[in-house]
Amino acid sequence: MSLLVVGSLAIDTIETPFGKVENVLGGSSTYISIAASYFVTPIRLVGVVGGDFSKDYIKFLEERDIDLEGLQIVKDGKTFRWGGRYHFDLNVRDTLYTDLNVFEHFNPIIPDSYKKTTYVCLGNIDPILQRRVLEQIQKPRLVVGDTMNFWIKGKNAELKKTLKLLDVIILNESEAREITNEPNLIRASKAIMNLGPRIVVIKKGEHGALLLTANTIFSAPAYPLENIYDPTGAGDAFAGGFIGWIAKTDDISDENIKRAVVYGSTLASFCVERFSLDRFKDLSYLEILDRFREFRDLSKFDDTLTS
Amino acid sequence: MSLLVVGSLAIDTIETPFGKVENVLGGSSTYISIAASYFVTPIRLVGVVGGDFSKDYIKFLEERDIDLEGLQIVKDGKTFRWGGRYHFDLNVRDTLYTDLNVFEHFNPIIPDSYKKTTYVCLGNIDPILQRRVLEQIQKPRLVVGDTMNFWIKGKNAELKKTLKLLDVIILNESEAREITNEPNLIRASKAIMNLGPRIVVIKKGEHGALLLTANTIFSAPAYPLENIYDPTGAGDAFAGGFIGWIAKTDDISDENIKRAVVYGSTLASFCVERFSLDRFKDLSYLEILDRFREFRDLSKFDDTLTS
Repeated sequence: MSLLVVGSLAIDTIETPFGKVENVLGGSSTYISIAASYFVTPIRLVGVVGGDFSKDYIKFLEERDIDLEGLQIVKDGKTFRWGGRYHFDLNVRDTLYTDLNVFEHFNPIIPDSYKKTTYVCLGNIDPILQRRVLEQIQKPRLVVGDTMNFWIKGKNAELKKTLKLLDVIILNESEAREITNEPNLIRASKAIMNLGPRIVVIKKGEHGALLLTANTIFSAPAYPLENIYDPTGAGDAFAGGFIGWIAKTDDISDENIKRAVVYGSTLASFCVERFSLDRFKDLSYLEILDRFREFRDLSKFDDTLTS
Repeated sequence: MSLLVVGSLAIDTIETPFGKVENVLGGSSTYISIAASYFVTPIRLVGVVGGDFSKDYIKFLEERDIDLEGLQIVKDGKTFRWGGRYHFDLNVRDTLYTDLNVFEHFNPIIPDSYKKTTYVCLGNIDPILQRRVLEQIQKPRLVVGDTMNFWIKGKNAELKKTLKLLDVIILNESEAREITNEPNLIRASKAIMNLGPRIVVIKKGEHGALLLTANTIFSAPAYPLENIYDPTGAGDAFAGGFIGWIAKTDDISDENIKRAVVYGSTLASFCVERFSLDRFKDLSYLEILDRFREFRDLSKFDDTLTS
């Protein structure tokens, strides 16, 4: 099965209470692709970087079997740069700067060899660009999209047009509430379904994730991490683990979507254990399988009615 | 098995986006007792009310087999009264008034017939009074205590003395963080264990509940309610379902404590479906068992490694 990922590639500078890293690899499509690459390869990546994008980053992506035919390199431009600082409470962060650079005029061009792709994951980019991607490809089996409050506020009408084309929307708790103006997450999820996606996945960070389909509600716990070094990219790693598992198994039944949510949670839980994408430098598939099984035990109880 | 519940009884006035009720039954010991009464009876209640406490409330408690020998009735006093208004986002509420009345000088006197009690649940009252209860009784098998930010801020040293005497502390997410000054809930739970309780239960409202013991971490989902009419008392109904199940089964193994967390979640989920304690007027044990089983399905996934 083939998987196309479109989104940003970035050079990040990140401060957390546990340290600071400068000019490290970031971007939504990067986290999504690397996480998905544990399940299906090659991953077809479409994005844009500048001439300053390190050869080491290219090498890292290639080693994880990411196909870079769709990566545009603007030699005389600079890569999208983001700087952020997390508070002692890691749920709170300040964006220090956002320099879009070459990403500002990103036009996703899908190479001919990518036009027949079974699974598509649209990272958090302008909803107009998300649609432009879909216009260039043959109807895929499943389209997963991410978004963020920036587009909910700034391009709401465009976002709603894009939502009609998505099978799955992955978004976080506050975004789900904002997009629907509905504080109750179950009602918000159903309202989002009325906007298009038939599968809604709500990421709740330390509270796990919620899945709603027409026939199922599923609640996945969060992995009980005591040491979170860097939350950056966790949501994208979630999306990558989610769509990676689905592409690997080519099974979009509710039962398998539940497993995909747990694989998403698993990849996100590894992601935050180190800065940037560092945890994926030595993460093995076996570790992923072990943690997947730990997730089961986290919410398992003996439902005998009398003890 | 016997269960002693100590806490407030109140007359509440509650506004939510779905309506308003005036002068309805409230109070922590009330919710705890009523919820626990589905599992074990009679419940031994210790609390105080004024001469204005309606005979209908007495009758309702007696019908649920609550033993009122320990209920002090101050004929010429007024019952504790609380008024609150919930916002469109039910997670936000304003306290409109708190008239302590006879509750201000509440001195929990444990009747002789209650002094040998297997299980004790201390509702949210002054930590000094919680200790005074424990001083009057023979060592019970398990002591569960609740608290709130008011005592964490205002009587921190006294609260810490009380924590040393508790086996189980039930508290909500923000309280767990506040008591330990630790935003990570897993680390906060472990820090609370160092203060005394060997079992920590963190209520997370719409995100479910978290249980930590020396050997177990358990994550219970929330029941996916679309219509929450009145969140008042949900935390106390949780505590009542939790300790009620433990008292019924007389089993304090980790596995059974997990089930107790799910029964607590079950009773809390019913509680919020109507105003005040109204849902318990016709709730049957069979409905509780059905919902308990639904909780299992909510977080269940087939962990086959390939589909």
